[in-house]
Order: sequence, then structure tokens, then C-alpha cells
Amino acid sequence: MIANRLPDKTVERLSQYRRSLNNVLLQGKTHIFSHEIAGLLHITPVQVRRDLMLIGYTGTLRRGYDIKELINLIGTIIDTEKGQKVAVIGMGNLGKAIIHYFHETRSKLDIVAAFDINPEKINKVYVGVKCYHMNLLEKILSEENIAIGIITTPPEVASEIAVKLTQAGIRGILNYTPKPLSVPDHVYLEEYDMITSFEKVAYFVKYH
Amino acid sequence: MIANRLPDKTVERLSQYRRSLNNVLLQGKTHIFSHEIAGLLHITPVQVRRDLMLIGYTGTLRRGYDIKELINLIGTIIDTEKGQKVAVIGMGNLGKAIIHYFHETRSKLDIVAAFDINPEKINKVYVGVKCYHMNLLEKILSEENIAIGIITTPPEVASEIAVKLTQAGIRGILNYTPKPLSVPDHVYLEEYDMITSFEKVAYFVKYH
Repeated sequence: MIANRLPDKTVERLSQYRRSLNNVLLQGKTHIFSHEIAGLLHITPVQVRRDLMLIGYTGTLRRGYDIKELINLIGTIIDTEKGQKVAVIGMGNLGKAIIHYFHETRSKLDIVAAFDINPEKINKVYVGVKCYHMNLLEKILSEENIAIGIITTPPEVASEIAVKLTQAGIRGILNYTPKPLSVPDHVYLEEYDMITSFEKVAYFVKYH
Repeated sequence: MIANRLPDKTVERLSQYRRSLNNVLLQGKTHIFSHEIAGLLHITPVQVRRDLMLIGYTGTLRRGYDIKELINLIGTIIDTEKGQKVAVIGMGNLGKAIIHYFHETRSKLDIVAAFDINPEKINKVYVGVKCYHMNLLEKILSEENIAIGIITTPPEVASEIAVKLTQAGIRGILNYTPKPLSVPDHVYLEEYDMITSFEKVAYFVKYH
């Protein structure tokens, strides 16, 4: 049990550690040192050790961390037992990509509804996920007890959607549009703008 | 002029600062304090001031940073003058979403080619970007002098694609598949796995 909420960035790295560790495990390794994890993620070993200390994990000096044990421990901390229900708002290419991604990835997160305003998409089912008209947003979110909303609409309507999600009682929003949002304090907002990843790569390519 | 290459995370934040500052500018503000920028990005004011010191920018104590000036300065550092050529490998939903995104966003990065193995997609043009067969990867990358490759294929083939891109002389790779990659040191690799954003939101929703 972790008494205090972990920092944002630690949770992000724990998720990345687990992702890399699963991969390393598939390659047949059983133990790993902090500097090896650090190398996989382009961060410092001190950072890795600090994060793992925060979740109460220490390896042995000689063999490093037990990979399976560490994967399981990270799971008990960042996974939710029951699984959380998720809705995707905006069924363009990105919305569809996300639904397919979750369909193929084993994950405790459960996409249970999609929303759009395009009549051709309404009532269609995408790999098991039904698309509803935006008019039904509040009704479906409440009936299904959906906690997380993913916004993949055009940026022009993102703010309006965030307000509607908040009014409907959503507790977490993942914004994939280039429009920065603001939400009340009780709603957790995570934003990913592709442009940041691209600009980062472009910057380093420039200096290579 | 910046003598040394900036740290990864600083470049990422500079891109995010610019994104938020453009938004604040649209709202009619002309100046901003480090604590306000920090609030927009959920980081500490110390972090903001440290990043801006790295690029040689200091605001005035009374009025804070001049937003327009700061946006322009960030541009001189992270943008490339000529624009860099980009290829997208894998024209599923995510590949298409990325091409549309760049089509709609003013950006110095220029997607000039797409690749797939599906005969229905070959020779099709997606908002100005032609899709080629994977067989032509090396030829087109070299002819067009493409520096950056974006991988949006199924995860099973991601490693193989990364090897091909590297052999074809690519200098930066953006991996959007859930499969972690390894590349030679001279290639800059940026990975984004949606699962990390989702797990972060889910974690915080659990504790709200």
C-alpha cells in the first residue's frame, strides 16, 4: 500500500518501466540492474532507483532487480482491480486507432462507448464498441458509470466536449487534440499533442 | 545560438511551452509569469525558469515574460529552417490520423511519403501524400532525402521496419507501436505508447 499519491512523472515512468521490462522478460532475462533500465529509457540510474524506492522496491546488489517481481509490483500500484470504463469522443482515424489498439492490447481499461455526430457512424459497432450520437453523452456516461473520456475530436470543439464530460461527472480526460484544455481540479487531465514528439525528433535530427 | 545540445526533456517542455503560450496569446494576454506557465503544464515554476535560462531568456520581475518574444525564441531553437522530410510507415488508422494532423497543423515538418504493403493502399494519395509499397522504402527515402520515419505498423513488424529505416539512412524514428525498439546511437528514437497516458489517467482517477 502506498500512503501518498505518487508524482505524475513517477507514474508515467512506472508504466514505461513495466513496458520495457515485459519486453526484456520475453528476451529471456530474469534480473536487471537500474542502469540497464535507465539505458532503455534514456534516463539516469539515480532516477530509476528513486522511483523504485518510492514504491518500496529494492533489488539485490549482486543480481539487480527480479524482473517478474518488479512487473507484478508495478501492476499492484498502477492498475485498477475492477478495470475502469472509458469512452472515446470523436470517431475519426485517431478514435478508431485507439479502439483497435485497446482491442489488441491486454489492458485493464475498458472502452465501452464511442461518440460522434456523423450519421454514418452512429449505431455502428467498431470492434465491439458502439458509437452513439453526442446527444446521448450524458445519459450513456451515467448509465455505464464511465470514469475516463478520451477526446479525439477536431480541436475546434475540444473545449466544449471537455465541459460536457465534466458536467457528466467524468473524472479523467485524455486530450489528443492540439487544443490545450482547462478542467476543474477534481478532473485529472492528461494531454498528448503529437507535435511535441515530432519537434523533439526534429530537434535532435538537426544536431546529429 | 545554443552551444550545447539541450536535454531531451527540455526540448519536450519547450515545445509544450510554445503550444500553451500560443493558446494564451489567442486569449489576449501579452505577458506571463513562470508560475502561470508552470500551472498550465502541471510542473514547478523552478523548472520553467531553469529551462528558459538554458535558452538564455529572462523576463522582467514586474511583468513576467513577453509571450510573443518567448514564442519566437523557442521557434529559433527547436524549429528547423528548411523543414525536415518525414515518411509514415503503416497506413492504418493511426498513420492516416497523423497525415491528416500534419495537413491541418502549420508545422515545419513535411510528410512526403507513406508506405504500406496492402495493395488497396499502394499508389493512393492521402491529403497530398502518396502511399508506396514497402519494397520502395530505401529508394524513396534516398531520392527524397527523408530524415525522419514514423512507425505506425502492427507491433510485430516494428523492429524489422526500424532496421530497414536505419539501413536506408534515416536519422530519427518516432515509434507509435507498443513494441519498444532499439536503434544505433546515431539514430534518435522517440517512442510513444498510448498505454502510458491511459495508465497515468487511470491511476489518478483511482485516487480522486
